[in-house]
Amino acid sequence: MLDNQKKNNVKETLHSKNKIVNDPVYGLINIPSKPIYDIIEHPHFQRLRRIKQLGLTDYVYPGAVHTRFQHTLGAVHLLTSAINVLKSKNIEITVDEEKAATLAILLHDIGHGPFSHSLEYIIIKKYGHEELSLLFMESLNKEFDGELDLAIKIFKNQYHKKFLHQLISSQLDVDRLDYLRRDSFYTGVSEGIVGSDRIIKMLNVVNDQLVVEAKGIHSIEKFLISRWLMYWQVYLHKTVVSTEQLLINIFKRVKYLINQKKDIYLTKELKFFLNNPNSDTSDISIVLNNFSAIDDSDILGSLKRWANSSDKVLSMLSEKLLNRKLLKIEIQDTPFEESKISKLKKDASSLLNLTEQEVDFFVFTDHISKNAYSTFDDKIQILYKNGTIVDVAEASDMLNISVLSKTVRKYFLCYPKEIDI
Amino acid sequence: MLDNQKKNNVKETLHSKNKIVNDPVYGLINIPSKPIYDIIEHPHFQRLRRIKQLGLTDYVYPGAVHTRFQHTLGAVHLLTSAINVLKSKNIEITVDEEKAATLAILLHDIGHGPFSHSLEYIIIKKYGHEELSLLFMESLNKEFDGELDLAIKIFKNQYHKKFLHQLISSQLDVDRLDYLRRDSFYTGVSEGIVGSDRIIKMLNVVNDQLVVEAKGIHSIEKFLISRWLMYWQVYLHKTVVSTEQLLINIFKRVKYLINQKKDIYLTKELKFFLNNPNSDTSDISIVLNNFSAIDDSDILGSLKRWANSSDKVLSMLSEKLLNRKLLKIEIQDTPFEESKISKLKKDASSLLNLTEQEVDFFVFTDHISKNAYSTFDDKIQILYKNGTIVDVAEASDMLNISVLSKTVRKYFLCYPKEIDI
Amino acid sequence: MLDNQKKNNVKETLHSKNKIVNDPVYGLINIPSKPIYDIIEHPHFQRLRRIKQLGLTDYVYPGAVHTRFQHTLGAVHLLTSAINVLKSKNIEITVDEEKAATLAILLHDIGHGPFSHSLEYIIIKKYGHEELSLLFMESLNKEFDGELDLAIKIFKNQYHKKFLHQLISSQLDVDRLDYLRRDSFYTGVSEGIVGSDRIIKMLNVVNDQLVVEAKGIHSIEKFLISRWLMYWQVYLHKTVVSTEQLLINIFKRVKYLINQKKDIYLTKELKFFLNNPNSDTSDISIVLNNFSAIDDSDILGSLKRWANSSDKVLSMLSEKLLNRKLLKIEIQDTPFEESKISKLKKDASSLLNLTEQEVDFFVFTDHISKNAYSTFDDKIQILYKNGTIVDVAEASDMLNISVLSKTVRKYFLCYPKEIDI
Amino acid sequence: MLDNQKKNNVKETLHSKNKIVNDPVYGLINIPSKPIYDIIEHPHFQRLRRIKQLGLTDYVYPGAVHTRFQHTLGAVHLLTSAINVLKSKNIEITVDEEKAATLAILLHDIGHGPFSHSLEYIIIKKYGHEELSLLFMESLNKEFDGELDLAIKIFKNQYHKKFLHQLISSQLDVDRLDYLRRDSFYTGVSEGIVGSDRIIKMLNVVNDQLVVEAKGIHSIEKFLISRWLMYWQVYLHKTVVSTEQLLINIFKRVKYLINQKKDIYLTKELKFFLNNPNSDTSDISIVLNNFSAIDDSDILGSLKRWANSSDKVLSMLSEKLLNRKLLKIEIQDTPFEESKISKLKKDASSLLNLTEQEVDFFVFTDHISKNAYSTFDDKIQILYKNGTIVDVAEASDMLNISVLSKTVRKYFLCYPKEIDI
Repeated sequence: MLDNQKKNNVKETLHSKNKIVNDPVYGLINIPSKPIYDIIEHPHFQRLRRIKQLGLTDYVYPGAVHTRFQHTLGAVHLLTSAINVLKSKNIEITVDEEKAATLAILLHDIGHGPFSHSLEYIIIKKYGHEELSLLFMESLNKEFDGELDLAIKIFKNQYHKKFLHQLISSQLDVDRLDYLRRDSFYTGVSEGIVGSDRIIKMLNVVNDQLVVEAKGIHSIEKFLISRWLMYWQVYLHKTVVSTEQLLINIFKRVKYLINQKKDIYLTKELKFFLNNPNSDTSDISIVLNNFSAIDDSDILGSLKRWANSSDKVLSMLSEKLLNRKLLKIEIQDTPFEESKISKLKKDASSLLNLTEQEVDFFVFTDHISKNAYSTFDDKIQILYKNGTIVDVAEASDMLNISVLSKTVRKYFLCYPKEIDI
Repeated sequence: MLDNQKKNNVKETLHSKNKIVNDPVYGLINIPSKPIYDIIEHPHFQRLRRIKQLGLTDYVYPGAVHTRFQHTLGAVHLLTSAINVLKSKNIEITVDEEKAATLAILLHDIGHGPFSHSLEYIIIKKYGHEELSLLFMESLNKEFDGELDLAIKIFKNQYHKKFLHQLISSQLDVDRLDYLRRDSFYTGVSEGIVGSDRIIKMLNVVNDQLVVEAKGIHSIEKFLISRWLMYWQVYLHKTVVSTEQLLINIFKRVKYLINQKKDIYLTKELKFFLNNPNSDTSDISIVLNNFSAIDDSDILGSLKRWANSSDKVLSMLSEKLLNRKLLKIEIQDTPFEESKISKLKKDASSLLNLTEQEVDFFVFTDHISKNAYSTFDDKIQILYKNGTIVDVAEASDMLNISVLSKTVRKYFLCYPKEIDI
Repeated sequence: MLDNQKKNNVKETLHSKNKIVNDPVYGLINIPSKPIYDIIEHPHFQRLRRIKQLGLTDYVYPGAVHTRFQHTLGAVHLLTSAINVLKSKNIEITVDEEKAATLAILLHDIGHGPFSHSLEYIIIKKYGHEELSLLFMESLNKEFDGELDLAIKIFKNQYHKKFLHQLISSQLDVDRLDYLRRDSFYTGVSEGIVGSDRIIKMLNVVNDQLVVEAKGIHSIEKFLISRWLMYWQVYLHKTVVSTEQLLINIFKRVKYLINQKKDIYLTKELKFFLNNPNSDTSDISIVLNNFSAIDDSDILGSLKRWANSSDKVLSMLSEKLLNRKLLKIEIQDTPFEESKISKLKKDASSLLNLTEQEVDFFVFTDHISKNAYSTFDDKIQILYKNGTIVDVAEASDMLNISVLSKTVRKYFLCYPKEIDI
Repeated sequence: MLDNQKKNNVKETLHSKNKIVNDPVYGLINIPSKPIYDIIEHPHFQRLRRIKQLGLTDYVYPGAVHTRFQHTLGAVHLLTSAINVLKSKNIEITVDEEKAATLAILLHDIGHGPFSHSLEYIIIKKYGHEELSLLFMESLNKEFDGELDLAIKIFKNQYHKKFLHQLISSQLDVDRLDYLRRDSFYTGVSEGIVGSDRIIKMLNVVNDQLVVEAKGIHSIEKFLISRWLMYWQVYLHKTVVSTEQLLINIFKRVKYLINQKKDIYLTKELKFFLNNPNSDTSDISIVLNNFSAIDDSDILGSLKRWANSSDKVLSMLSEKLLNRKLLKIEIQDTPFEESKISKLKKDASSLLNLTEQEVDFFVFTDHISKNAYSTFDDKIQILYKNGTIVDVAEASDMLNISVLSKTVRKYFLCYPKEIDI
């Protein structure tokens, strides 16, 4: 038993220690204290618990129900590791810079709304999710009396230590390192597993720029290929595309009905944005508060009401999405022939009793495109022992990374399963 | 290139094959075809995609957002493994029995509503989740022309091969084997990892009863202890208890307000159950359809509206839950002293400006209790090489399993964080 | 308690069941019974417990101490899975064919000696490891009264169901699937992780040829790239190459000393092969028995004696290898300049006091070469839903697999660390 | 491209960085630089690469071929983690103390010989492995000019910061944390998986004593039970016991033959110890050099020769061990009856044509005993938030840890498989 004086010291020790969070991917994660922890507790941030990272991807990979909240904590964890590695290599990073970089990664995704990859620019026309993240940061900065000044500078790449921005936003940032590993973990697609541990241990800084030591080149090659395979096996999986297109068409129909002055179920916040075309020019704090009040449950809840809507198109589309009666999708390298599309539209229109305008919500074509490595953006730089620095697209001699920089384009065509083709 | 005849054969081969689902826990899972797959596609079942397995536990373990849909597929996978092991040991299991057992495990949890462990008997007063599962099965049985006859018999333990029921519902069923492993996986609590693979390989049947071969006894010991530790680290984690109590109190308040004829936001289906005390005696198909239309998003959506309710108690409680401003909770082995409770109520009431009746929603005490192994229920039977069969509570000589059969009771006390104690 | 009759039945059930082995990579593995199990118990096979899969690679990756015994059991496990998948797709495989294929994979590596990749053709001049495997099979076939007839036919690709041979020996055989995953697991090099589970589920057979269903194409791409990366990160890692060269030079020196009639420590069996140039033309059963008596411990034991040899070259080389004082190695894309090599030899010779002939054991150059996919050997065939079959090198559109089929050649130069360059 | 000045800086940065080792269990491990790395390169330490951690356990669990070298690096890794956790809680640990503790854990097992658990006190009579470790440390300390002074003080528990010794040697030291996790990993016995990460994060120091924060109590419970199960599933698995007894009897026979002045194969170093009963009183550096020259390959090599010995007992025992023709073993809670043992000896003696004295090498009985937690040794102390400290045996209320402190004793009886019982 300790005397009282000692007990008090012990208590303080116990209370001053960092928060620890269990993460299925990395094990125990330390959450640094103020102001990081206070921002995590903020309603704007807690909201991310109710937004899935991969939207409706769990219709294909049922395990993929992880949230943006988890991803963000994971990215914070990787950033901490990366900063520790750099410091152990005598790169100077001050306590304030570390705090700022941590805040920047913590908030890098706060501008995401529900089903962001589908509904971005649909709920809010004016801003993409990165601009919204910045607006949220600026708003929080006021609330926290300027604590985020440096974080915002780093986020906007206006700080002279460029590598801090690169850690947060580049072709080899902790955002990608976390989401590839996490999405791979939750989907069960082992092709996406990334040796993030090894990559991070190989990071270094030369002239304020992030570089990877040459020993890590195979890990970088593997990282680029894993990302590439994840695109085609998960992010652009054809059933995922079909699901997202269904959701997009539902919102298109909702907007159409609003234009037609039809009475349609909308939560207060969705009404604010959809009903009022210029909502996003309002006082920014009102915009943010309304946006922050929307999460996955609002969309799912609305779908249920819309499934009972008197508008046949809206009710059919919503019912299909809710009960996973997805549209059939075909994918190919060239555009689909007009005659095939017309035929499908005609069949669908007679089968489902739809007008020519209505059938466009059920039969449509478009394309997706992607490259695995961009030679235009900030490059991934490889540092050799003799001090030379080379772009990975040239440095790689085992795999032809330059091949991965060409853009692949795929065309898709959706139509109701009921049509026998 | 194949000639046309062969091509057709190939096509058929490709189409007749089973569906495969990626599962983060077990890898690839085969989904047997008709009628299993048809039932998975049924809206009643698809609904399980929108119900989290562990309710609000992700407030403590952010990774724990997996759904009842995933758990059910996992249990189907383990059942298939178990049946294959038994068949390899020359236990006779017919194709029909296998199909029926698979249907029974597929539907064993279909009666769960959102946040089931908290809201069971609150949304529907009359039925627990097991009774509801049975009602759903009977309803689906009509729809599928009696395909579920044998499944229902097994579920109700009315089939002579008792081991089929035991695989589905006992102290060593595939339900528990899956949820312990899955909950452990998603929370990141390694204490709950269960060697389900080894346990299943040790299963056998004697006199139509499920037994475990003696070689597997340590795995059983480990299984019981893992389950026990999962109770105290996850299911009954004090912050989880505090979260669930908050949700329960919110619904108590809603019911109170309904009784007081206050106008309060309710979705159509919640209105059906909460507004109408005898709703559960209605035509069972109406009850089931209404119940099936409720999932996590309805509760979350309602919480957001209730957070803006004119009733102060409801809005405070809902806002606390939404933004994770949980009640503080203390846990101890003995009941809390009346004086301490009164003092807290008095403080809370003056601090939050609440009446005596209102303060009971914010300051309250109750208890939780649990044992790790029940000596009353169906026992776990160990089979020795000489043919004798012994209850694991006696067979275990390395760990004192009998100690685990005593019930542990813990008392808890909740109160607002704002009170300085 | 059971009556005696029943007890006996239980006992029989327990005894007739298969053997189960714990494997760190796959969990529990079933070992099929006779004659598989009897062959595993044979001294020729038990010997594989004392031969590491990756020779001296643990000098670079300390975890890589797994044995050929484990690898072989792992390959048996994958073969069983593959056969079950094919049978579930209605490919006819008889019990005898399954047994024969299992025996063939079980014995595919039995002809490996210690440090095989380095000492192949050095201990035994005449046979490579595959020919030796076949000789062992034929010898065991006599001992087991023709039980291996069909296994040998499959191994030699003389059986009409070509896919059975392809499962055992092709660019996508269970041998590679196991060793890539196992080597990756034990080295800790995550770049080599292969989704063997998924690949196996995608296997099919058309016209007696093994094919992969198109859904699995990304897994094949990943498999080829993982293998490629494993070559450069593990199998041809420069320090591994340097270690193997040291071992090879030790044996060259031993042979030289034998030719010079020097007295040198040799175990009975090494003496049989090294001392007697035509030993491999002896009665084959004597050759096999002598070869089977040699394992890693003989080489390590000899190294220790050789480290104390009166021959300076042998003692220096052996001491270096034993205590991991490896030669320095440089690797580049072009041959090394003669002048550099001469300079190094001169320095080494004066530093270590070596004659011109002796220095060649310490300073030398050579090359390694490899391609990731051979377009000459049996190809990996992709099966599309419409029945067409395409070589993966053409089918792959996401990755340029054809690039991987070009041969990469690297030159290396070894010299003692003591030389300051 | 960088100018020369900068290139030089870069080169230095690259060279000053720590060594990194891939470990299958923890991923990448940092090896601190001088003098740690120099000692790892010392032949005494490199020898640990050739000594398996679990001796002959791979006869039961084929994957368990990991070495003491790997285990030691793993323990170094966990120690580094533990020290970082303690420093983050403001426990003062100087650079010198950290280095010393690291050296102490690095060398804690250096006194192990091959098959240590079986051959301890058999090869060297006078010293156990811990005393030998200390002798090696003292010898290395001379070689490294006193660099190990503090390490030795900590190892001998003569340093005032007791927690440093406790981290290295106690009921919750990093030695146990690593070997349980590693042995579990390599055997594939999931029952032994330990949440070492969580335990380490919960460590703290009060009054120079190591304590565990109360939040970690379930992890400690799980740790003690995992260790307990590992004893009965791995370390004292009956087939492992039978294997070890065979090895011990072989050495007993060898010693007997030496006493009888029989000519028997012995390597130089084994001859030093076995042939000369007082060898261990010689000059300690000679003892250590001879001991250090012995590893697993010497024992395996000797077994092969002994299998051809003219002494029937030695050759039979050695052949059995080499080819895994193990003795049958029975285990029970009470001593075996004399009559049963006599009967078996009589049968064995007639079956194998052995004298009465010889048969004792083939038929024998003894016992094993173990407790899971010692209440006599240094206890595991739990620290509560109010500052009180309680022994885990009392603190645990969920599991009855005190039950685990009673000693379990098991009797075994071995006899040749050939006897039909």
